[in-house]
Amino acid sequence: MNQSETQQKLTGLIDRELNSLELPQTPSSLYEPVRYTLNLGGKRIRPYLTLTGCGLCGGEPEEALPAAIAIELLHNFTLLHDDIMDAAETRRGEPSVFRKWDSATAILSGDAMYAWAFEQLQYYGESNQYSKKQYAEIINIFLESARTVCEGQAYDLAFEKQQNVTIDEYLTMIKGKTAALISGAIKLGGAVADVDGNCLNRLKQIGAEIGIAFQIQDDLLDAIADPEKFGKKKGGDIMEGKKTYLSILALEKGSKVQQDLILSVLSRDNVSQEDVENITDIYKSLGIFKQTSDTIEKRYKNALHLVSGFEESEYKNELTELINNLNNREY
Amino acid sequence: MNQSETQQKLTGLIDRELNSLELPQTPSSLYEPVRYTLNLGGKRIRPYLTLTGCGLCGGEPEEALPAAIAIELLHNFTLLHDDIMDAAETRRGEPSVFRKWDSATAILSGDAMYAWAFEQLQYYGESNQYSKKQYAEIINIFLESARTVCEGQAYDLAFEKQQNVTIDEYLTMIKGKTAALISGAIKLGGAVADVDGNCLNRLKQIGAEIGIAFQIQDDLLDAIADPEKFGKKKGGDIMEGKKTYLSILALEKGSKVQQDLILSVLSRDNVSQEDVENITDIYKSLGIFKQTSDTIEKRYKNALHLVSGFEESEYKNELTELINNLNNREY
Repeated sequence: MNQSETQQKLTGLIDRELNSLELPQTPSSLYEPVRYTLNLGGKRIRPYLTLTGCGLCGGEPEEALPAAIAIELLHNFTLLHDDIMDAAETRRGEPSVFRKWDSATAILSGDAMYAWAFEQLQYYGESNQYSKKQYAEIINIFLESARTVCEGQAYDLAFEKQQNVTIDEYLTMIKGKTAALISGAIKLGGAVADVDGNCLNRLKQIGAEIGIAFQIQDDLLDAIADPEKFGKKKGGDIMEGKKTYLSILALEKGSKVQQDLILSVLSRDNVSQEDVENITDIYKSLGIFKQTSDTIEKRYKNALHLVSGFEESEYKNELTELINNLNNREY
Repeated sequence: MNQSETQQKLTGLIDRELNSLELPQTPSSLYEPVRYTLNLGGKRIRPYLTLTGCGLCGGEPEEALPAAIAIELLHNFTLLHDDIMDAAETRRGEPSVFRKWDSATAILSGDAMYAWAFEQLQYYGESNQYSKKQYAEIINIFLESARTVCEGQAYDLAFEKQQNVTIDEYLTMIKGKTAALISGAIKLGGAVADVDGNCLNRLKQIGAEIGIAFQIQDDLLDAIADPEKFGKKKGGDIMEGKKTYLSILALEKGSKVQQDLILSVLSRDNVSQEDVENITDIYKSLGIFKQTSDTIEKRYKNALHLVSGFEESEYKNELTELINNLNNREY
C-alpha cells in the first residue's frame, strides 16, 4: 500500500527519533539489551497513534514526539518482561532478550527501559510551552497506562490457572494488556495538544476500541491466518492451551461434549495437528469465527465513529486509514 | 536508644502514611505481593532521610511525605527484582516474593510497585504549592535514582563473571546499587524545600557518603558481626563467593599465595567453615578490617562535615544522630 505524505512524515519522525536516542555505553550489560530490543523493530503503531492523536486534536505532531517515544519504550519494556514470564524463545523472529542473555539481564534492562521511557517526558517538564497542569496530565496518562498494562498481564497469568474464564473477564484482561498502551498512546497525543478532559476521554475510548479489536483479531488470526504471513504456527494458541476470545466463546456456546473436548485439548501437554483441527471444526460449527469477526468489525467501527466526530484534517484521514487497514489486516 | 520527639514524629508520619496507602484489591496476584513486601517492614532509612533532608533545608517535613513514600516504594521494588536475580530465598526473615509466589509474580508486582512509587509524586504535580520547575526537579531526582540503581545492580551482576574487580569499579557499583537511593532520598527532601542546585548537590554528596559507608559496613559486618544480631551467617559473602570491599582489598594487598587462596575459595561451590576462617585470617594479617573500618568512619565523617554546614535545627540534630548511629551500628 502506498504511504501518504503525512504518513511518511510521521513514520520518518518516529524512526529518526528512535535512531537518535542516546543510550549510555556502560554498563553494557544493561544497555546492550535495550539497544537490541529497539533494533528488532516492530510496527510502531503506538508512537504513530500518539502523533496522529496530537494532530487530530489540532496540535503539532512533532511536539508529541517525546511522548510517542516514551510510550514505545514503555511497550518494549513490557515485551522484555512478558517474554520472561511467558518463557518466549523468540521476539520478532530473533531470540528474546531473556533467551539471548538471561532472565536477570532481561529483568534489569527492562527496569532501565521503564525509567528511560519516563525520562522522555521530562521534555514537557523543561519546555516553557507546557503548563504544569499539562505536564502533570501527560505523566498521569503515562502512569495510568503503565499500571493498567501490569494489571492486564496479571489477569493473563492468573487465567492460566483458572478453569473458567468469562468473556467479561477476558475483556478486562485485554483492556489492560493490549488496550491500555494504545489508549495511553493516543491520549498522550491529545494531552500534548492541550485538549480538555472530555476530549481526552473520547481519545481513550478510541484507543480502547482499537486495542480490544486488535487483540481479538490476534486471537482470530492465530486460528485462521496464513502462517507464512502471520509469522506464527496456525493454531498456536490451541497448542499452548491459551484462553482466547474464540475458546472462551466456544466454551460458552458449545454442548457438554464440545466443552469437554475443548477443555481436554487445552489442558493437554502434547497437542496434535488432529486436535487443532477438531477444535477448529467446533469453532466453525458454532459460528465462532463469524461472531468473532463481527465483534472485531464492530469495535473498529466504533473507533471510526468516534474519530469522525473530530474536525477534518490530514491526521483524521490518517487515523481513519490506519483503523481501516487494521480492520483488513491478514497478519 | 531513646527516640527524640522529632524522631518519633517523623517515624510516626512514615508509618501512618505507609499504612494508609490504598492499593487496589484486584488483581490480587499483582497487589498482594506488594502488600506483603511492605508489611515485611525494614529500617525505613530512606524515607526518614527524605523528611530530615527537607527539614534540614528549612522545609516542612510533612510536605516531603509523598516523596519519602515514593523512594521507599522504589527501594522495595528493587528488592523484589533483586531477590529474583540473586535467587534469594528470604527477605527480612520471611520467604522472598519470588520464592513465596514465583518469579513471574515478583517481576510483575515489582513493575506495578515501580509505577505506584511514581504515582506518589503526582502530589507535587497537583498541589499549587509547587512550581512546575520544582515538580520537574522532583521527578528528575527520582528518575536519576531509579536509573542509577539499575546501573549499580548491572555492575554487581557483571562482577560475578569478572575475575578482577578493582576498588574503583566496586565503588562505582555501590554508588549505584546502594548510594543512589540514599542520595536520591535526601535530595528529594531538599527539592521539596525548594533549595537551589548547589544545595541539592551538597545533599547528594551527603547521601553518597552515607550510602558508600553503609554498604562497605555491610561487607565488614558480614565478616565480623554477631550472626544473631546481624541476621546473616558469619562469612556469608565468602561462602557465596561475592566480591566485597574486603576481598577486593585483600586481593590488591595480599601475596601471590594469599591471592590464590582467596580466589580459590571465592570460586568454590562448597565453602567450609575452615575456608572462611582461613580467609578471615588473611584479612586480619593484611590489616583489612582496620583499613575498612577507617574507610567507613572517614565516609561517615565526611557526611557529618557536610551536614554541619547547614543551619542549626532539630532536623540537623536528627540527621547528625542518625549518621552517628549508623557509624556505630553492629548489625
